[in-house]
Parts: sequence; structure tokens; C-alpha cells
Amino acid sequence: MQIIIEPSVAERKQVFVRPQLEAKSLEQLVNKVFDDIKAGGDKALLHYVEQYDKVKTTGALVPVTEWSGNFDALPEALRLAILRAKENIECFHRAQVMPVTSIETMPGVTCWQEVRPIERVGIYIPGGTAPLFSTVLMLAIPAYIAGCREIVLCTPPGREGKIHPAILFAASVCGVTKIVAAGGIQAIAAMTYGTESVPRVDKIFGPGNQYVVAAKQAALREGIAVDLPAGPSEVMVVADDTAVPAFVAADLLSQAEHGADSQVICLVNNERTLNRVLEEVALQLEQLPRKAIAQAALDNSKLILLADRDSLLESINQYAPEHLILCTRDNNFYRKGLTNAGSVFMGNYTPESAGDYASGTNHTLPTNGYARAYSGVNMDAFVKKITFQEITQTGLQHIGPIIETMAIAEQLDGHANAITIRLNNK
Amino acid sequence: MQIIIEPSVAERKQVFVRPQLEAKSLEQLVNKVFDDIKAGGDKALLHYVEQYDKVKTTGALVPVTEWSGNFDALPEALRLAILRAKENIECFHRAQVMPVTSIETMPGVTCWQEVRPIERVGIYIPGGTAPLFSTVLMLAIPAYIAGCREIVLCTPPGREGKIHPAILFAASVCGVTKIVAAGGIQAIAAMTYGTESVPRVDKIFGPGNQYVVAAKQAALREGIAVDLPAGPSEVMVVADDTAVPAFVAADLLSQAEHGADSQVICLVNNERTLNRVLEEVALQLEQLPRKAIAQAALDNSKLILLADRDSLLESINQYAPEHLILCTRDNNFYRKGLTNAGSVFMGNYTPESAGDYASGTNHTLPTNGYARAYSGVNMDAFVKKITFQEITQTGLQHIGPIIETMAIAEQLDGHANAITIRLNNK
Repeated sequence: MQIIIEPSVAERKQVFVRPQLEAKSLEQLVNKVFDDIKAGGDKALLHYVEQYDKVKTTGALVPVTEWSGNFDALPEALRLAILRAKENIECFHRAQVMPVTSIETMPGVTCWQEVRPIERVGIYIPGGTAPLFSTVLMLAIPAYIAGCREIVLCTPPGREGKIHPAILFAASVCGVTKIVAAGGIQAIAAMTYGTESVPRVDKIFGPGNQYVVAAKQAALREGIAVDLPAGPSEVMVVADDTAVPAFVAADLLSQAEHGADSQVICLVNNERTLNRVLEEVALQLEQLPRKAIAQAALDNSKLILLADRDSLLESINQYAPEHLILCTRDNNFYRKGLTNAGSVFMGNYTPESAGDYASGTNHTLPTNGYARAYSGVNMDAFVKKITFQEITQTGLQHIGPIIETMAIAEQLDGHANAITIRLNNK
Repeated sequence: MQIIIEPSVAERKQVFVRPQLEAKSLEQLVNKVFDDIKAGGDKALLHYVEQYDKVKTTGALVPVTEWSGNFDALPEALRLAILRAKENIECFHRAQVMPVTSIETMPGVTCWQEVRPIERVGIYIPGGTAPLFSTVLMLAIPAYIAGCREIVLCTPPGREGKIHPAILFAASVCGVTKIVAAGGIQAIAAMTYGTESVPRVDKIFGPGNQYVVAAKQAALREGIAVDLPAGPSEVMVVADDTAVPAFVAADLLSQAEHGADSQVICLVNNERTLNRVLEEVALQLEQLPRKAIAQAALDNSKLILLADRDSLLESINQYAPEHLILCTRDNNFYRKGLTNAGSVFMGNYTPESAGDYASGTNHTLPTNGYARAYSGVNMDAFVKKITFQEITQTGLQHIGPIIETMAIAEQLDGHANAITIRLNNK
């Protein structure tokens, strides 16, 4: 880890600059796959599934009869853990559903919002060595609570053409309506245009590699909404002498094992904590199966000493971390002054892992400083809030002249006339 | 208007296809202005203000002392109308602010959301013959209620280098913190990078021409959030024999006068209403100062007869209109079945103009079918919802094993270890 002692305000500006995201130009490839699937539908999709997912199949849609065939292959403890996590995530997200409030802004002028689900959402789950079923929970549960009519899950099949039973299990219990065995650009293209077997969706969620990121940008250009801009995962831990250094080290390493590009930053307010965290990181790193990856991430990570708590708070808000762990006696000072973060973990017994899997909060969060302007995925991401208004004839007599005056000042006489013609109708 | 009688399901699919947005490539020009302003700051900004806004000035930032100099030039009725509209908009948007709910998802596992304002927002107000002060109200009021620290307004100056007093007045009463006399690409670039006098913002709001649209896309690529994807304004009116044809015609024309590319669609369920609306449109069109523009929009507009109310409802949801006006005896049938729309106006005395100016709802809404996935601008657009969690030592004993099981199944041992190390610390 890079150690930085009492950086000045100007130095902190430099320290917190993130590495530029490599905007590899995949546009030509993405455009070709998109054009082909738009024109060719399922046939083109299967062609690319064979080429990139390395599976030859006669249909990408997984028949519902095959969803549950393999649940017995899952340890019971895992099934129970998934179900318990589901309960917590459902509980926290259901609490976000707010009732309609109707407001009479002037006598006879009633305005209100009504919430409607986005009708069709797509969820992308990356492939790889391990099945990322936790992301199925995080995206399908709020979609299901919102009432989305179609919840399409795309994920690359394994070499034998099958989806991992943990993904199938999570999808089954979380209200997914269709499972498509396709990955990468071809999966995103199929959800963007729709094919004979894959529904076109209105919004696409989920993480992915650079191909998926580029494909989601293309989907956005085609009018499909997406969850969040992409960036590598990151954690910022703030620790004082009340923090348990072994816990801090474990949290830093759990972030570092995600990938060599993971961003890991630890702020401490005293030298003893700094040294103890360093020692613990070295000790625990040795035990980690993904040691090589974690080591690469740690090489770019930063351990920063700042004694002053105002400077610490300023640093947090400046960096705008995806995950923020607070292990200090001043946690509430930081909470109150906090303006920019994705998700916050308070105290020694609140590791990031809890929110990654099971406590109830969502793990799809703004990276790369996007926490300055974006929320993590929550119920808002799966619904639209439509405004309504109803004005009585008397109400229009009150508000009408105001509207006429404003419309005429904006030289929109047609807008004014829509009022005048009604006011004159007595 | 194009008249379409009882189109089939397949024909409706064609009828509701919107004209392809002309994605004119302005990328080269946008990139040059962005690069120059990033490197050159105010000096480059003023260069482009001179070139494109046709005003030579020594500073784009309007000194606060100059904001109120010209309020006397505004008719008192207009000032009062703006203040009354402000009250209504403030009332409706304040009602959207929701209290924090804290949830104990398991014993000792507490999760909650806290709302924080986006710190710095930018508002773009287009120039032109009329001052669009209503958009200042719609964007600055929620920003102010949210608590945004910096609310920067950019708008092109008039030929004499001055901002119209109606814009200054609206900005003054709605909490704008800085006014910048610059338009087009250069305004968006200045807010994207910040200059010596213009603050860098976290999110940019507001309408604009093709240059502004292209510049907002460039800002998005640079990590700045934007309000909504762009598209021409549109209205869909649904009328039966309870609708007053003259009112319907006035609403269609008030949309048509926006621009030649305005989308105007009227659905009726009987021939008599169809004919009466047509007559009234012809009659009222003659009186309109912006007749030429409205005529051009009407040439592309559609008057569709569909007797069956299920088909009408399906058509509404298929088109996903920005504005929907319901003048039928079945308004509540359509309201309940509605899934896709930006803002809805219920009944003969609720014209779109009301929501455009003064009833309280926002007029920045999803066009071009984006209502399928996007809400209009509301309080959510100016805040982030940050999730928090706090777990007690006992709470971690409950939830810890669940997390360990899931993390190990995803082969993230570091994530599991962050739990194990805490559970072992007794």
C-alpha cells in the first residue's frame, strides 16, 4: 500500500484522482453484433452465443421446466442462506415504497404522483468461475416488488450449455420471468431489440466486463435506459484507535480480491492504527486464495494519515466512495457531514460483506465518483413516478390568469389561448 | 392532420413510430469546444461566447449586483404570476420529500436510507426571442428545496450582452446562486470542467437545441450526470363525446406551436368528436401568431378513431406520451390502466398549459417514448439516497453465517473472512 502522511488540500486533490477508465473502442464490434441481432433475431443471437459463449444450442431461452432440475445439486445451507438474504433484501426494499400524496396547490387545483413499474426489465449476470447469484437477488427482488411484468435474466451458459443451479435457484425464488443463456454483447443486443424468444426490455441492469459495458452504452443510444455508469469497485475505510485493525484489514482485502483494478483507500487519524492495519493486511493477505489479485489491487491502494477530522470528512466527500466503512468514535460526525457515498457501514461489526450479500441494502452502487450525482440501485430504479393533475372549472378561474400572463410573456399564445377559451366558456 | 380510422393492432404499431431523431454529428465541434475550455478556462469560454453568442465581454459571470437592476422593466402582473407559480411548484415538490425509514431486517441488523442533495447543479436555459423563465422555476425550485449548495444558471445573453429581466427575476426568487451569460456548447463545457468563474457541476439540467443536446452527451461521457435524454415535445389527447372540441383543439394547437417537430396525437372514440375537433383546429389555427410553425407540426400530426376503450388504453401505453390529456367519461379507467406517460391532465378544465407553467407539477418530462423507463424531473432528480447500515456484535452472529455461506459459494473468500474474523473475536 502507498502510505501518505498528512497530505495538504492540494495533494489530496491529486491523491483522490481515480485512474482514467480505459475507453477501449469496441464500437465497431458492438455495432456489428447489434445490427446483426436487430436484423436476424434469434438466429443471429445463437450464432454469437456459439462464437463467444462457446456453446452450440438450438435456443437461448431456458425452458421453465429446466429451471429447477438441478436444485438438489445445491447444499441446503446455501439454499437457506439465499432465502434468508432474500427476506432481508425484500424487507428493506419494500420499506422504500411510499404512498401517493395528493396536494391541492390552489383551491380546485389538485396535483399528485402515481408510481408505475417499468414494464420490462433486463438483468445481466456475468459468467466466470463462480456463479454471481447475489446480483440476481439485488436486481430481481426490487423488480419483483415494483411489479415489473417481465424480468429477463441473461447470463452466459457454462461450457455444457447449462446455467449454474445457484443462479437458477435465485432466479426462481426472486420472480424472474425469463432466463436466457447468452452473455456479452449478444445478450445486451437481444434485450435491446427483442428477438423471437427474448423480449425487448425498457431498462437493463447489471455489471459486466468491457464488452458488456460498451454494449450497455449502445443500448442507451438505442433508447434503452441503464442502471448506472460503469467503473471498478471501491471501498474507503476510516479508522481511529477504536477500530479493530484486523477487521479493517479484512475489509480492505475483501475489496482488493475483486480485481486488480479495485480501488482500496484507508484513512487513519493516528500512526499506531496505520502501522497495525499495515501489519494485519500483510498477515491476512498470505491466507487469501485470490492473493495475486488482491496484491495487485493493494499495490495501487492508499493508506492515508490525517489527524484532523474535518480534513477526513472533506476527503470522504471529495472521493465520493462507492462503499464507506466508518470505524471511529466520531461515526455520527461523519454521517451527518456526509454528502457523497454509495453505501455506508457503521462500526466495527458492520463489514461491507454484509451489504454485499444479506443485510438488506442493495449492492449495485455508484463507483468512480458517480456517488456525487447518482444513488445506488433502489426501488426508484424500477419505477416511474407519473404526475397527474385535475383542475375544476372554479380552480381554473383562480389559476388561469396566472398561466395566461406567463404564456404571453414567453410568446406562446397558443398556450394562453388554451386557458382563455376555457375561461370564456361560462 | 392525418386521419386514421380504426387502425388494427399491427397498423397502430406503425402509426405510433416516432420520426427517427436526426443524430447530426456535431462531435468534432463539441470536442474542440470542450477541449479548449478544459484547457483555457474563462479565456476560452469568452472566446466562444464572442464567436457563438455574438457578445464581446470581459466576464461571463453576471455580478449579483446586476441581477435586480432591471426588475422594474417587468410588468407587475408578470412578477406576481411568477411568484404565485413558484408557490405552487414549491408546494408540490416539497410534498415529495419523504422521511427516513429505518428497518431492522434481522435482530441487530439496522438498515436505512438518508437523502443528500447533489451539491452542485447546472441549469441551462435556451435563448431565443422569448425568455423561458418558466424552466428556471421548474429546475431551480426543486434544486433549492433539495438543498443543492450551488445552482448555476447558464443562458445566452441578448445582443447587448444582457440577460432578460424575467430570467433574472425567476433566478433571484428561486435560489439560483450563479448566473452565467453564455449559451450553447460553451455553456455546457464550462459547467462540465469548471473555469475560474464558473463552478464545475455534478449534474446538468435543461432543454436546448441540437448543439446543447450534443454537448450534454459529451458532459455525460465526462462523468457529469444529465436530467433526461432529448426529444421533441409531444401531447396525446384522448377525447370522447364529453370532451369540449374547442378545448381539445386549443390543447393540440398549444403543443403544435412549440415547433415544427412537435408530436401531436388525438385519439377519439366517435366520428362526431373527430369532425368537431378538426373544425375547431382549422378555426383556431387562423388566430395563432405562430400559425406557420403550428401548421407544420399539424401536417405530421394524427387524429385517430378507435371506438374500443381497451384499444385506446393500449394505444396510450404503447405511445408512452410526454403529456397525456384525458377528456372522457372513462378517465379513471385510463388512469388505472396507465403504465407509460410523463404527466397526465384529467378533465375538460385541465389543459397542459397549467402544468407547463403554474399548477405545481414539473414540465421537464420524458419525450420520445422514454416515459417507458424514465420519470419526469422531480425531487429525486436533485438528491442521492445513500444507504446506511449498522450491525451489532450479536446481530453479526445472526447474519454472519449466511454471509459466509454465500461468499464462499461465490468464491470470494476475503468477503467470508471479513465475517469469520469478527465472529471469532469473542
